[in-house]
Amino acid sequence: MAKREVCVIGVGMTKFERCERDFTDLVREAVTDALAMAGVRPEELEQAFAGYVNGMSTQGQRALYGMGIGGLPVYNVHNYCSTGSSALHLAYQAIAGGLNECVLAFGFEKMQKGPLEKQLTGLENIAKEADKGAPPVAARMFGDGGRQHMELYGTTREQFAKVSVKNHRHSVNNPRSQYREACTLEEVLASRMVYDPLTILQCCPTSDGAAAAVVCSREFAAKHGHGRPVKIVAQAMATDKLEDFAQGALGMIGVGMSRRAAQAVYEQAGIGPEDVDVIELHDCFSTNELITYESLGLCKEGEGGRLIDTDAVTYGGKWVVNPSGGLLSKGHPLGATGLAQCAELVWQLNGMAEKRQVEGARIGLQHNVGLGGACVVTMYRRD
Amino acid sequence: MAKREVCVIGVGMTKFERCERDFTDLVREAVTDALAMAGVRPEELEQAFAGYVNGMSTQGQRALYGMGIGGLPVYNVHNYCSTGSSALHLAYQAIAGGLNECVLAFGFEKMQKGPLEKQLTGLENIAKEADKGAPPVAARMFGDGGRQHMELYGTTREQFAKVSVKNHRHSVNNPRSQYREACTLEEVLASRMVYDPLTILQCCPTSDGAAAAVVCSREFAAKHGHGRPVKIVAQAMATDKLEDFAQGALGMIGVGMSRRAAQAVYEQAGIGPEDVDVIELHDCFSTNELITYESLGLCKEGEGGRLIDTDAVTYGGKWVVNPSGGLLSKGHPLGATGLAQCAELVWQLNGMAEKRQVEGARIGLQHNVGLGGACVVTMYRRD
Repeated sequence: MAKREVCVIGVGMTKFERCERDFTDLVREAVTDALAMAGVRPEELEQAFAGYVNGMSTQGQRALYGMGIGGLPVYNVHNYCSTGSSALHLAYQAIAGGLNECVLAFGFEKMQKGPLEKQLTGLENIAKEADKGAPPVAARMFGDGGRQHMELYGTTREQFAKVSVKNHRHSVNNPRSQYREACTLEEVLASRMVYDPLTILQCCPTSDGAAAAVVCSREFAAKHGHGRPVKIVAQAMATDKLEDFAQGALGMIGVGMSRRAAQAVYEQAGIGPEDVDVIELHDCFSTNELITYESLGLCKEGEGGRLIDTDAVTYGGKWVVNPSGGLLSKGHPLGATGLAQCAELVWQLNGMAEKRQVEGARIGLQHNVGLGGACVVTMYRRD
Repeated sequence: MAKREVCVIGVGMTKFERCERDFTDLVREAVTDALAMAGVRPEELEQAFAGYVNGMSTQGQRALYGMGIGGLPVYNVHNYCSTGSSALHLAYQAIAGGLNECVLAFGFEKMQKGPLEKQLTGLENIAKEADKGAPPVAARMFGDGGRQHMELYGTTREQFAKVSVKNHRHSVNNPRSQYREACTLEEVLASRMVYDPLTILQCCPTSDGAAAAVVCSREFAAKHGHGRPVKIVAQAMATDKLEDFAQGALGMIGVGMSRRAAQAVYEQAGIGPEDVDVIELHDCFSTNELITYESLGLCKEGEGGRLIDTDAVTYGGKWVVNPSGGLLSKGHPLGATGLAQCAELVWQLNGMAEKRQVEGARIGLQHNVGLGGACVVTMYRRD
């Protein structure tokens, strides 16, 4: 059956930061802003998909009740770091399949201080290792992936560090970013070593925040005054195949699912990476951004290091990757990240990104991955 | 846009009980049985919706990897006690909207001993009250709802207790039920008082278990040899409206959302309660079954007590309600319940329910509610 066109007519996000605000307060801000940009009243929403990793089973309802929205079907969705885009993908499907005209996707997280394994149910044994001084498990996995890449392709510590320099520089222009200070290559390399090759400036910080998107049909968008809305032209979720886990450290950090999700999106859209203008990708660690250049087909396998050396992935280059500052500098409140990436791309394609605007951006690509979970890749276009 | 017909061609469930088996082992049994009944290979599944309340963010993937199924998009869905049917509702939408031909919904739970508030993230304060000897919070809420019903309509303790007698009697014929012993009205009333009017035999037990359903299009069903499959003819989710919470104890236990979800289903299907043959409804406590007779329109508001007195809701009556034994006797592993109800109805409509078969059952109704969460009502039919 033919899919319907799916549009994103409103987005919102809080500043990402460590803060004292309650999750209901964060969600209220993000959803209110998304509805205002869309020009949509809460009563027009037909379903809501709430993404978060930590918390009670029905936090989505609680957040909406807290802002006076009741009676709306809500699904609470969890997929670790790809939670936000999993909620977005369900929203996309509700519209693409023609069952709804307008739905809401939102994501949020109140994180506790400390490494990931201290915050997630079920990782108590790993958390005990962290108590004994072991590096955080995520840094170990993405560090090992980086070192495998160095061994296989000769990638250098400097090349990984350049990713952080770029994203921190981008975030100077993003008022919603947790960090907004540029740093030099020397500073990145000289910062505290967490797990080789990852220094602390190559690891995303601990963040609180929320983000939201109003997703609708083309007809609904037009009725609400959006004559030229941002469309999701393709979206795909992939998960690990069992054989991926036998591919060493790179297999463990989702390279296989990233490639498959990207490939599916390029095929669905009939648009390849060469036509993309702006990209938000999952740079939880500098190594993962560089490796993901290859998974998304921006360069051949093994050439990610050379790509960052040529300045092809920043303003003035072929693509601007992570104009928001990415997870590395903007922050990474788990459930919110996939919707914050969506917000940045929708702002960019609407020409609303102010000082960090990518000139003439028409096609955007989003990549959000969660270990042990899923990878969701999304292509946006504004004609 | 017109919805496509949605079929359930395979179901499976483990015996519900307290057990030492790991959740991956429980899921393997339920999913394997559902696929076998459907005659579907894992490679034919396009998406999976995993429901559970407790556990890591990506338990759904872990369970599938554990049985050798990788590469399948998985959404982990949470909605407290309506989690299982929330996963089922997403599966329904994937088919109804025409985006998929065949998907999997499964639910599972490994519960810890003790009241609900000891097992759920975010209820730590209530758990402390339980430590001091307060009755479990769920018993208090559904007990208060029962007492409000007594005050408003003259319902008696005996009428509530009769629900338990009926469901325990039904479960004698269900080999997957946690309890399989009939009990008398006197025994129910004389068992330990948990919270007036709820004695322990009127409260669902603590259970482990898993259940699964293979959901597909009519065309897919036909290709797999299911010429006369069970169809989901209507399904709706409703959530609390803010004004419901002002309706006293009955408002707090989801009466409003139950009514709205049922009404939506009757309208979608063009079939009313009078045409239903067999019902699985959310009898977490005896009071809730009696009150739900009214929410589902089996009788008028306030007449639930009289309905149980007339034997209209057991074999030989107008409907058979909870032939499986219901949550009260079969057990209630939170995430599995909504899919176990589905399994029972699919077996009933296929004439596969053995000693507990409802003769000539053609139309089935499912009601699954989660507090603070959602109510999902589903109507099944086999022509």
